[in-house]
Amino acid sequence: MANQGDRAGNVTFVNRFTVAGEPDDFEKAFARIAEFMTAQPGILGYTLSRDIGNPKRYVNIARWEDAQALRAAVARPGFQEHVQDLRQLAESESDLYVERQCYLDESTPAS
Amino acid sequence: MANQGDRAGNVTFVNRFTVAGEPDDFEKAFARIAEFMTAQPGILGYTLSRDIGNPKRYVNIARWEDAQALRAAVARPGFQEHVQDLRQLAESESDLYVERQCYLDESTPAS
Repeated sequence: MANQGDRAGNVTFVNRFTVAGEPDDFEKAFARIAEFMTAQPGILGYTLSRDIGNPKRYVNIARWEDAQALRAAVARPGFQEHVQDLRQLAESESDLYVERQCYLDESTPAS
Repeated sequence: MANQGDRAGNVTFVNRFTVAGEPDDFEKAFARIAEFMTAQPGILGYTLSRDIGNPKRYVNIARWEDAQALRAAVARPGFQEHVQDLRQLAESESDLYVERQCYLDESTPAS
């Protein structure tokens, strides 16, 4: 069923992209950085989603156990190379948030 | 463990708030609208999170099975009253996205 409650410490990283070139190329490059990130300890999940009205705009939303886990991941060898690949393809703006309320419907099949 | 794959149709609603008054009042009003929304069919989950560097800025991220489920929820009686309560407390900007990539680490305890 559902769970709800205080997630003190969980953080959400929101990264909004504007793609300069082909969205397909961006999605492929993003998948590579995502493979790297999802192998790091402390990641709870991520989505990459495309603006419904603008195929050049995307948002990456990643949840982490805490800010320290995220900082450790971006300090790992290899991360900067992935970021440079993405920077060739898109501009981005990011913000980091601490979770205050959370609800996940776990009764819904995952895919 | 983890699951990953195509979530054709799932949408993510991203609503960024700038609170005019007390963050606590905003969080309480948001919890009321969230109670309403999480009772609607098709919601997969939501978070309300606060900017790590600015306690007046929040983001609500809500995942829905599809855009139609979200549209049906906001058309329900009662929704507009909740929105008006929030508008007294904060300005907001929203965007709607279609999921292209998704990873959820289900091995991590939910709370």
